[in-house]
Amino acid sequence: MSLNRQTPHFLRLKTKRYGFQDLRPETKRLHGVHVFQCTDQLGIVASISRCIASRGANILNVDLYIDFDGGKPVFYSRSEFAFDPVQWPGAVMDDDFSQISRLFNADKSIVKIPSKDPDLKMAVLASWQDHCLVDLLYRWQEGELPVDIGCVISNHDRGPNTHVVRFLERHGIPYHYLPTSKGNKREPEILNLVSGTDFLVLARYMQVLSPEFLRHYKKDIINIHHGLLPSFKGANPYRQAYEAGVKLIGATSHFVTEELDDGPIIEQMVDRISHRDSLHSFATRSENLEKQCLAKAIKYYCELRILRYSNNKTIVFS
Amino acid sequence: MSLNRQTPHFLRLKTKRYGFQDLRPETKRLHGVHVFQCTDQLGIVASISRCIASRGANILNVDLYIDFDGGKPVFYSRSEFAFDPVQWPGAVMDDDFSQISRLFNADKSIVKIPSKDPDLKMAVLASWQDHCLVDLLYRWQEGELPVDIGCVISNHDRGPNTHVVRFLERHGIPYHYLPTSKGNKREPEILNLVSGTDFLVLARYMQVLSPEFLRHYKKDIINIHHGLLPSFKGANPYRQAYEAGVKLIGATSHFVTEELDDGPIIEQMVDRISHRDSLHSFATRSENLEKQCLAKAIKYYCELRILRYSNNKTIVFS
Amino acid sequence: MSLNRQTPHFLRLKTKRYGFQDLRPETKRLHGVHVFQCTDQLGIVASISRCIASRGANILNVDLYIDFDGGKPVFYSRSEFAFDPVQWPGAVMDDDFSQISRLFNADKSIVKIPSKDPDLKMAVLASWQDHCLVDLLYRWQEGELPVDIGCVISNHDRGPNTHVVRFLERHGIPYHYLPTSKGNKREPEILNLVSGTDFLVLARYMQVLSPEFLRHYKKDIINIHHGLLPSFKGANPYRQAYEAGVKLIGATSHFVTEELDDGPIIEQMVDRISHRDSLHSFATRSENLEKQCLAKAIKYYCELRILRYSNNKTIVFS
Amino acid sequence: MSLNRQTPHFLRLKTKRYGFQDLRPETKRLHGVHVFQCTDQLGIVASISRCIASRGANILNVDLYIDFDGGKPVFYSRSEFAFDPVQWPGAVMDDDFSQISRLFNADKSIVKIPSKDPDLKMAVLASWQDHCLVDLLYRWQEGELPVDIGCVISNHDRGPNTHVVRFLERHGIPYHYLPTSKGNKREPEILNLVSGTDFLVLARYMQVLSPEFLRHYKKDIINIHHGLLPSFKGANPYRQAYEAGVKLIGATSHFVTEELDDGPIIEQMVDRISHRDSLHSFATRSENLEKQCLAKAIKYYCELRILRYSNNKTIVFS
Repeated sequence: MSLNRQTPHFLRLKTKRYGFQDLRPETKRLHGVHVFQCTDQLGIVASISRCIASRGANILNVDLYIDFDGGKPVFYSRSEFAFDPVQWPGAVMDDDFSQISRLFNADKSIVKIPSKDPDLKMAVLASWQDHCLVDLLYRWQEGELPVDIGCVISNHDRGPNTHVVRFLERHGIPYHYLPTSKGNKREPEILNLVSGTDFLVLARYMQVLSPEFLRHYKKDIINIHHGLLPSFKGANPYRQAYEAGVKLIGATSHFVTEELDDGPIIEQMVDRISHRDSLHSFATRSENLEKQCLAKAIKYYCELRILRYSNNKTIVFS
Repeated sequence: MSLNRQTPHFLRLKTKRYGFQDLRPETKRLHGVHVFQCTDQLGIVASISRCIASRGANILNVDLYIDFDGGKPVFYSRSEFAFDPVQWPGAVMDDDFSQISRLFNADKSIVKIPSKDPDLKMAVLASWQDHCLVDLLYRWQEGELPVDIGCVISNHDRGPNTHVVRFLERHGIPYHYLPTSKGNKREPEILNLVSGTDFLVLARYMQVLSPEFLRHYKKDIINIHHGLLPSFKGANPYRQAYEAGVKLIGATSHFVTEELDDGPIIEQMVDRISHRDSLHSFATRSENLEKQCLAKAIKYYCELRILRYSNNKTIVFS
Repeated sequence: MSLNRQTPHFLRLKTKRYGFQDLRPETKRLHGVHVFQCTDQLGIVASISRCIASRGANILNVDLYIDFDGGKPVFYSRSEFAFDPVQWPGAVMDDDFSQISRLFNADKSIVKIPSKDPDLKMAVLASWQDHCLVDLLYRWQEGELPVDIGCVISNHDRGPNTHVVRFLERHGIPYHYLPTSKGNKREPEILNLVSGTDFLVLARYMQVLSPEFLRHYKKDIINIHHGLLPSFKGANPYRQAYEAGVKLIGATSHFVTEELDDGPIIEQMVDRISHRDSLHSFATRSENLEKQCLAKAIKYYCELRILRYSNNKTIVFS
Repeated sequence: MSLNRQTPHFLRLKTKRYGFQDLRPETKRLHGVHVFQCTDQLGIVASISRCIASRGANILNVDLYIDFDGGKPVFYSRSEFAFDPVQWPGAVMDDDFSQISRLFNADKSIVKIPSKDPDLKMAVLASWQDHCLVDLLYRWQEGELPVDIGCVISNHDRGPNTHVVRFLERHGIPYHYLPTSKGNKREPEILNLVSGTDFLVLARYMQVLSPEFLRHYKKDIINIHHGLLPSFKGANPYRQAYEAGVKLIGATSHFVTEELDDGPIIEQMVDRISHRDSLHSFATRSENLEKQCLAKAIKYYCELRILRYSNNKTIVFS
């Protein structure tokens, strides 16, 4: 599927022109990412780091956060390490981290080798607006988003000869046009189409997914809202912001929950506006923010940098 | 009152060290500012600019805005010009602009010669928090705020030997401690103390002024809200933002109306926060925004750059 | 050529969904833009505004700037107005503004009716890097850039079946591959290909155009430099910035002059980086800035918002 | 010396009003900071974290960075932990970390208990400009800067009755006026006055310290430069930027080295300017950046967040 994405040739070209190659000798070994979550206890970092060192691997980065806001403190970490796959084969690594997981009764423990393991697979849902969708596709093609695109579903008819549809065709990504109506949101068909995916992205999808859909899909859904949540929930946030006379507009990417536009916020971006901005220029400026805000959320999500905590918040290890 | 403010000596020093003096020869003549508002009609700019030219004066800048959102388009302008006071004496200038005002049946027409006319006089109301008040006083002392401080009123007791009180004493600015209680907001006394002022500033004043107060005072009141309106109105916006899990916090300066935290927005500023920020660091970061956001609103207000329009919006000619 | 650009259908859709239509009734009349430059004198604004009013037209906006830094003050203005083309036909308008031009012995006087007059025609020169070129094409397709693309010239071979080449083909925009070498920059051929254009854009074109080329072409050339000028001129500014240990990187769009990377700056944008950023992530972040910085320069240039002054500076009426 | 700084009463007030107290129960134990630097080896994080866990302490945060750019990779870390001083007395803690230091042949190993250990002591050197100095003093008084001010030295005479001098008097901070001339920079006297300090801050000190001074003082010196380094080194960077026609101005805080304005950069901030900005407004805007940029550098330095690496770069663990 990624035949047309940035080729090794192109990356070699970039490396050569900018002289990247000598900077990270560690990149010659494999990189691993380990994400961990459990009730806070003594010795978690010690255990993880001892495990990594014992296999001759080097920790490159550790991010950790302890949430004290709820009843019991909860520990969250994300570690990056460089290792030799001969010295530390996949099965052994899995076993090692499983032991730690059992030791601390972990709520979450993920290991990933980005260069070997398959990318997460996402499905994108869109409506008539193209800007977020096109931006995603372009960034994906450029190799900026470490993700596999399972399919694109739209409730707006683009026609066969449009930019988006041609792009998807060229890359072998299925495109499904599923017109929705007030009475029929086509949710069973959507569920069916996205069954093999790891997460969904709503790229300005102008339908609210039902609680039933969420309960069936179970996995994460990332939405981009064209307003600075928690302000301007619901319909036409551009107009809401315009009428409120704000001096800054914003976009918010967040996880979808049953409560409309109320899920944990992942990223927010703003732009300065003035009395000269019309509703039209609000839209143009906002679209620019929405694209960046959604792309960053997807990139970080795929890099396992985003952890939900404390009911409605996110840790972003950046 | 401004004996201790930046002296001509200091300004000459600055001029000499940075070599400012040769850059704006026009500053050797006097500068005037003209603000105008009326129903949009043909020939307004032509009339104003012809009037200015006819007196041998040069237009340095024109900002105009026409609001088409309401029923009838409304015209707003702010013009800066350089003139020779011998060629265009004050009384003649007043007369000239009055004629234009009558011609277009103006809703507002203000002329000001900053170097000759007295600064606007403000009173500042504060509570226990000092950061906005101290910042205002320091900027005023530095000559950054073209305003006259009539008095400072606080419902929190600072004691005689504190930084703020000593500063005010030294500059001859009256300081009034008026403790408020649930049943007694001391509004008649406040009204009395601020009777000679041109506008009020609420520098984190933790009391809501009553509709009666607003109706009696009649003039503009500028508030700083420690949240990004229209989000997080009312009490403890830091905690509201913290609990909403936002990734950006902000401050808003706005005009006070009878509706709490709902008056026309003048300026908004934001700062990026992360999951690592505590409620305490929310406060510290926000305070930094509040100071800047309020100072900018006051500066622009005194420079006649802010015009209210369309019920709940502001034009900011910046 | 613009068959595939945003169709009236799409724009109507946007208007309907966001409710834009009622906001600017003035848009039912035609809009005009008038740009003017001359030695500063009495009565320029008065003359322009009287002329506009005398034809029943309304001034929507005036931006003016007087440069006092050089010997004689120079006046620059950009006015937008709404007019009825029956009441003020094109020939009469041209005549009116020509009279003003003669009256003040203008150095520059341009009138444009964006909805009637043809867009400026640009040619784009690029090398192996695609990000700026693709971004331009996409924004142009979206209707964000009021420009006509005459052709794209590249000194890097893309091959027929690439994204860019297919896009250009579909839109009927000629694509010329002209490989350059140390001894042969193909300038006569380039000059020939761009002869009918109004300005050139160097979208990360990795060749320095010779003084001869500039003297022959005569018209404006806009370049995007991947560094924060005047820092990091010349080759590999990413590496220069990386090695300087800066905490902010930036991009600069500017006019090309004979002096390398030294022409008048139009726009600059920055992004915050940290010790964790590699040379590779410098490039990725910078590319994001470059796209936005170049697009903004082109948009403003086509909207006649950019005026060169004082030898090496630009006025940007935004 | 800190009698007049924010009192426990004030902090309790803040805590009560904003409801901070329940958020970080860990703050009831003591916090420690451990900074470490050595040639990269296996097991460093494991050793540090095992040591902390073995004493019943909890790691709250780990920041680490490995520099691969030079010959041998170098490891840098900063860990925060919460501990019980009865369970882990100071002498034992020192001993524990010394062992680790010996084990890895560390280049740097610092342990600090902010609530118990004395603050770093700095001396401030200033000239006629007050803005950075006053800002520092005000932030210090507010409790924002965890630093002890040894003395303030100025080569400009303020006179006894000025804001700064009175402030220093009130807080018992010695103020020394040492007029400099071309031939006499008073460096021996300065060296003598700052002999007991941990670092120096040049708050717009308009003298270049000699290599001899640096060699004698040996400790870190932080400077604020009023330009975006490496652009605009040396004298009058405002004018340099003004004449270059830039669209962004900036400030840079950096360590002082023998090379003028060329030491490792700690922090940079920018503000957007336009053709309307005069040299005077460049200065005003820049001063606002300088204050923030210097204050952040001092705060982070005192919190042990800044490590120099790779000859001319800084790690900022933020």
